[in-house]
Parts: sequence; C-alpha cells; structure tokens
Amino acid sequence: MSESPSTRPPPDDVRMRGFTRRSTVEEAWAWLDRQVTLLAPEHVPLRQAAGRVLAEAVASRVDVPGFARAMMDGFALRAADTLGASAYNRLALRVIGESMPGRGFAGAVGPGEAVRIMTGAPLPAGADAVLPFEQAECEAGERSPSESRCTAHRLAVLGEVGPGKHVGRLSEDVAAGTEVLPTGHRLRPQDVGLLAAIGVAEAPVVRRPRVRIVVTGNELLPAGSAPQPPRIVDSNGPMLEALVARDGGLPDHPGIVPDEPDAILDALRSEADVVLVSGGSSVGREDHAPLLLRQHGELALHGIAMRPSSPAGMGTLDGRLVFLLPGNPVSCLAAYDFFAGRAIRAVGGLPADWPYRRIRVPLARKIVSMVGRLDYQRVRLVGGRAEPLAIAGASILSSTVRADGFAIVPPDSEGLPQGAEVEVFFYGLGG
Amino acid sequence: MSESPSTRPPPDDVRMRGFTRRSTVEEAWAWLDRQVTLLAPEHVPLRQAAGRVLAEAVASRVDVPGFARAMMDGFALRAADTLGASAYNRLALRVIGESMPGRGFAGAVGPGEAVRIMTGAPLPAGADAVLPFEQAECEAGERSPSESRCTAHRLAVLGEVGPGKHVGRLSEDVAAGTEVLPTGHRLRPQDVGLLAAIGVAEAPVVRRPRVRIVVTGNELLPAGSAPQPPRIVDSNGPMLEALVARDGGLPDHPGIVPDEPDAILDALRSEADVVLVSGGSSVGREDHAPLLLRQHGELALHGIAMRPSSPAGMGTLDGRLVFLLPGNPVSCLAAYDFFAGRAIRAVGGLPADWPYRRIRVPLARKIVSMVGRLDYQRVRLVGGRAEPLAIAGASILSSTVRADGFAIVPPDSEGLPQGAEVEVFFYGLGG
Repeated sequence: MSESPSTRPPPDDVRMRGFTRRSTVEEAWAWLDRQVTLLAPEHVPLRQAAGRVLAEAVASRVDVPGFARAMMDGFALRAADTLGASAYNRLALRVIGESMPGRGFAGAVGPGEAVRIMTGAPLPAGADAVLPFEQAECEAGERSPSESRCTAHRLAVLGEVGPGKHVGRLSEDVAAGTEVLPTGHRLRPQDVGLLAAIGVAEAPVVRRPRVRIVVTGNELLPAGSAPQPPRIVDSNGPMLEALVARDGGLPDHPGIVPDEPDAILDALRSEADVVLVSGGSSVGREDHAPLLLRQHGELALHGIAMRPSSPAGMGTLDGRLVFLLPGNPVSCLAAYDFFAGRAIRAVGGLPADWPYRRIRVPLARKIVSMVGRLDYQRVRLVGGRAEPLAIAGASILSSTVRADGFAIVPPDSEGLPQGAEVEVFFYGLGG
Repeated sequence: MSESPSTRPPPDDVRMRGFTRRSTVEEAWAWLDRQVTLLAPEHVPLRQAAGRVLAEAVASRVDVPGFARAMMDGFALRAADTLGASAYNRLALRVIGESMPGRGFAGAVGPGEAVRIMTGAPLPAGADAVLPFEQAECEAGERSPSESRCTAHRLAVLGEVGPGKHVGRLSEDVAAGTEVLPTGHRLRPQDVGLLAAIGVAEAPVVRRPRVRIVVTGNELLPAGSAPQPPRIVDSNGPMLEALVARDGGLPDHPGIVPDEPDAILDALRSEADVVLVSGGSSVGREDHAPLLLRQHGELALHGIAMRPSSPAGMGTLDGRLVFLLPGNPVSCLAAYDFFAGRAIRAVGGLPADWPYRRIRVPLARKIVSMVGRLDYQRVRLVGGRAEPLAIAGASILSSTVRADGFAIVPPDSEGLPQGAEVEVFFYGLGG
C-alpha cells in the first residue's frame, strides 16, 4: 500500500485474480496436521514447569519415602509387646530414645523397648509399629506423653497395635523404577509436587513455540495509542499475543509492519517456529503476503469456505508454518481459532483441539447460512439458550466481546432452526 | 521440633489437647467469605492484561471507527450515480483521486465523480457508497481496475450500489460513551483487542494477591534436591506455587522454614495478602503454627470435618488471611482446594468457586464414608465411570497424580453406592 520506491509489483504469473476455489476447513486441517512436528525437548526448573508438556516419560530413581516412617506422634515399638494391653492391663516398656523428622534414632528397638517418635520420623530398626500418644502414658505421670519427652522413662501401654500400624511403608508413595508420568502429559500442580518428591530438579518438557506476529496496515497505530482518524489502533496484535500465550506459545510482536513487500518479507523471515500475518491476506492489489509466500515459499491454501475469514491462507516459508489472517478483527480471531491456534498447540505438545469449554444448548433464534460454507457464529447465553448475535460484520470486534462464545454451522447446512441444539464453545483462557 | 534455645513451649492456657470440635466445610466457607475483601486496583499495560480482572467498568471515549470507511476495494461515489447501471448500460464517472488506509482523499466527491478507495480507507466527503472493482472498468481499458490506479481516468460503472453499500459506518463497532466491559470481567484475548481499539493503554485491574508460602519441617530438603533418607524433598512448596499462580496469585516461597516458633512467626509476618503455612498445622507438640496464630492473631477455625485435611485451620495475623495446611501432601492439596484457593481467587476478583471443569458420571465402585465428615475422593475416569482410587493415605501424593480429578462425598452421607451419579472435578490448570 506504500508509495515508497521499494514497492515492486509482483510479476503477473504469481498474481491471483480472486479465489478460484476455496478450500474446506477439513482440507485445511488435513494439510495442517500433516505439517505439524513436535518441537524439541528442553529442561526447565520445576518452578516453571506447571502447564508445560512432558517431552518424555518420567520414572523415579528412588523410593518415596526412602524409609519406613511414623504416621502419628507416639512410640515406635514391637507390636508383639502390646499384645493384651488395655487400660486395665497396662504393659510397661522402657523408652530408650527418640526419633525426630529428619533425624532418626541411631540404635535398634529390642523387646520391651520403645522410642518416642514424631510424625514423619524414620521408624527405628527393630520396631514394626507406632503406638499413638493417646494409647500411652508416661510412668513418670506428671504430664501427658504428648507434652513431655518420656525419654529415660518407663512407658505404660494402654492398648494393642498390630504390626505396621501407623507406619508409612518404604516406597508406599513411589517405588524406585516406577513411571510416574507419561510422555505428553501436561503438568498439573500435584505433578510438579511429585517430581520434586522424587528428586527431579528440571523437567524435560516440549519447547514452547516461538510465534512471530506480523501486523501490517499503514492505517494502524500501535496498541497503547489513541486512535487518530483516519488511523485506527491495532487490535489484532494484542489479541493475538494473548491467544498465543494461552496456547502455550511465546509471542514475538515487534510492532506494526509497513505495507511494503520488502518490509513484510523481512518480518516473515524470523527465527520463530510459527509466523502469523495479520492483514493484507486477500487477493487485492495491496495484499502482499500471499504473493510473497508464493514467490519465496509455499502458499498451500488460500481462501477457505467459511465466514468470516474466507480470505485466510496458510503455507510455509523457510520451513516455518505461516498463517495469513485477515485484518478484520473477527476474521482474525476466527482464523486464529480454526488454524493458527491448532498448529501452535500441536507443535507445543498440547491437544490440537479447541481449548474452549463447551456445552450443548438450544438455539434461541434461527441462524441462516449457506450450503458449502461453514459459519462461525458468535452467541450469547441467555436463559440457557444460545442467542446468535445479530451483528455479523467481520470488522465488529465488539461482537466477540459481547459474545460468550461461538457456535459452528456446518458447511452442509442451510442454517439451523430455532430450538435446534448447538454446541457452544466458550471464549476464555483455556487450561 | 527444634532443639534450639529459641524454642519456647507455649503457655499451657493456649495449648490445645486435640480438636474439641471440628468445624464443617460450610462453616469454614462462611467465615472465609466474610473475610474476603477485594484488593485495590492497579493499572497494567495491555500486554499484561489478558486473564486479569477489571477493577472498574471501561467505557469508550471514542467512536470506533472514528470515520466511515470502505469495506471493499473499489470506488467511493454517490450511490445515486450508479442508478440503472449494468454491463449493458455502462455509466461513466470521472476518477478524481484516491483514498488509502490511514491517508484519506482531501477533497469531496461530487456528482459524476469517483475516488479510488481501498478497504479500511476513509470514505471521502460527498460519497455514500463503495462500488467494488468487480463492478467497474477503467475506460483506459488496458488493465482491470484492481491492477491499475484508474486515477485521472474515466470509469465505467457496470452495476448499481445502494447508499451505504460496502461502507463501514462511523462508530459501528463502538460508539463513544458506550460501556464496553463491566467491572469484574476477566479479560479474554478479544477484550484486550477491543481495549486497544478504543485507545486504552493500561487496563484498570484488580491487583494480583501476593501469597507467602511458608513450608515448615526439619525433615524437608528444598525442591530440586535429591532425597537423602531420613530427609525427604518438599513437594508442597512447588505444588502450592503452581496452585497460587493458577488462581491468579503471585507466589512468594522463600524456602524451607525451620520448625521453630520464632522462625515461623517471622515467615508469617510478610507483606503478603494471604499466607499459606504447610506443615505443623495439627495439635501436636511440634505444631507451632496454630499456637502462634492464637497468641499473635486470631485462630478462627482449627480442625475441619473432612478427610483428608481434618487438621487444617485458618485465621488472621496482622489483618492478613492465614491458612494452616497439613503437611501431608494430599491433605495440603485438599485444604488448598477447599479454602486457600477460594480466598486467593476471591480477593483477586475471580469467581470463588473451583476453577475445575466438571462432569457428572456414575461411580464404578462404591465409596464408604462416615456421617458428619466430607470426603475428598480422588477418582480416575475409566470408560465414562468414576473409579475411586483405593489408596486413600493423605501422604500418598502419587494418588493425586494418578487421579483425573476428585469427587465429594457430602457429610450427611455414609457413602455412595456403585452406579450413583457423582460430580467429578477435573484437576487441571483452570482458565
């Protein structure tokens, strides 16, 4: 769109005169899914691991716990020494020491002996059970055993405990050699906790995709500016940054790129794994991106049988996936949702499917569509029914802000009647 | 648990001898919900605004777009000048200039005149419609109008357009003065885009809660270490960090705190909005945190009628919410899920309810419970049924890793029979 001398009109043989045939969404997905290859693994500290996807299965090298331990505060002893004990038949034991968490008792418990023990402390050699304080009394008598040490005292056993009672077994949480988490698992908070417990310091995870965001348009001011008619503020850049981050990618949005082929080609040639181009994706004279892709890479699909976003396209350049997203913000969002987000999630190891929560509800009003075209219909949820938003213009971003989500009218349908059940995908942050 | 001289046993009058009465989960929620006050607003750049909660409604000060604009590439003209035009009745107009995106045509379009215009460019004064290139021909004839400039040429109109055709109206997306987003709204990607479009540079959002994580236990090694029996690696710290971040909080986890009252009190007294204490929450001699809270703040509830997590507690210190989470990792997770997470979400402006996706499915096996106690039951989803995980120990973190989510057995129930329908809450990252 620029008047600068660097603007060279592309040669006629790469110029397109309108979309000769639009691809179906299914065709686009099939092409896309063939292109996707999982990114290489990297190791990240546990603190950064939540939400990341395991690049390999993790097996434990150690037992957790690595020792038998007390599950109650009380006395470690031989269960056999409590046989027949009750409040009316107090059995006496000699307290020979204590075992504290992180600092066990060095000796062994013999017949007639006990060791004071706190929850989490290692069970001493020779002992096979823990008698809780509630079932014991210090012979010294002046304080309850939970409040005194009962060391160098004699102990009265007031009840029986069986072998293994109140003892956490060696390796009862994780046995050495066990696979604790499989390849491809997305780490939840408790998974990170377990990795810590088995001594993992860095998790092997799929690298996050770097996503270059190329926003073109000479009418655009960068986000954060006030609009100055006839210039408008870029809304696609910040929206795409948030979408990419939601889908596990690392957005790289250096700023608005002038509508000049050289500048756009420069911006496309980044070190990113995926490139998104917003604006100039159609077949007009000022739509440089499709032509650049045909000249310098592969324009695999251009024009999709959907509304909005029919001028979307995709291809590759220098081995990188490139998505051509229409500049109209609703089209940009839909094309991201249908194609770019799918690829970003997949190369990062996440499920390719939409991250949106979904419900099935009846339509509050009919939707009219066209056979041969998929419709991306913004809806509001009102009283448990999906109400299609009347404003259909691809330039009306506020329609997606008023919407709770979207419904899809399949290409083989002329529309959906009032009351028909539709699946609503809730806009949100995924997870 | 320390032997250091700074350990002072608390005076007998604040010492508790077991839980005299456990609070119900409902009572704990009621107390909690009374404590919650929304944090103050702050302004953040749009790039950091996705996922944040609006502290105030946002109204637009401007019209978007701030001018009428072309929605197609073509010619801006007076619709009346196309009346009766067809391929057999070509009407001639004089092309007097061009209007480009971001750089309009300075003059006005009079009768019999047209201005070449590109999508997004401002409609010139006098024009009321856009004739697409497809319905026009340059009289010069050598190239189609989409490829030549048709400036200083005469133009043949091949079809009619009505007033307003292919014109985006002034303010059709957002009219100045309109509230575009309400207070309390969590910003989705398209919302951030719309804020950019209306010229917002920084979004007014609720401050993220700072959450101090105090992990106590002399047996604990920091996450990232290898376990060295009888010492184990802290799993609650990294798990809580991930949970807090998921719930919109900023975790502050300085490291393992020795089991000494002075050290724990120091760690409790942070600049945080919410304090989580993991470990030493019960009524044993080495459980310092409840006593510290009673001595220096308020121990509002201690002991909850649930399993696991019955030794959980909560209160306030220096006006800050403090949660006492049991050290056993499953109890820690459950107590976080039931109480701490709820508070962190609420003070940060998020819905207090669980962020977990939920479904209703039948139970694959019965669950036995006890009247008067709520059970937090880990389950796996197998063939569309919820299978309770047999290993119930509160110390078995791997049970939550093998689980897909949890089900709740309410306190008025002795358990649930096989086939009973339960609501399963999926562990995950929320969103």
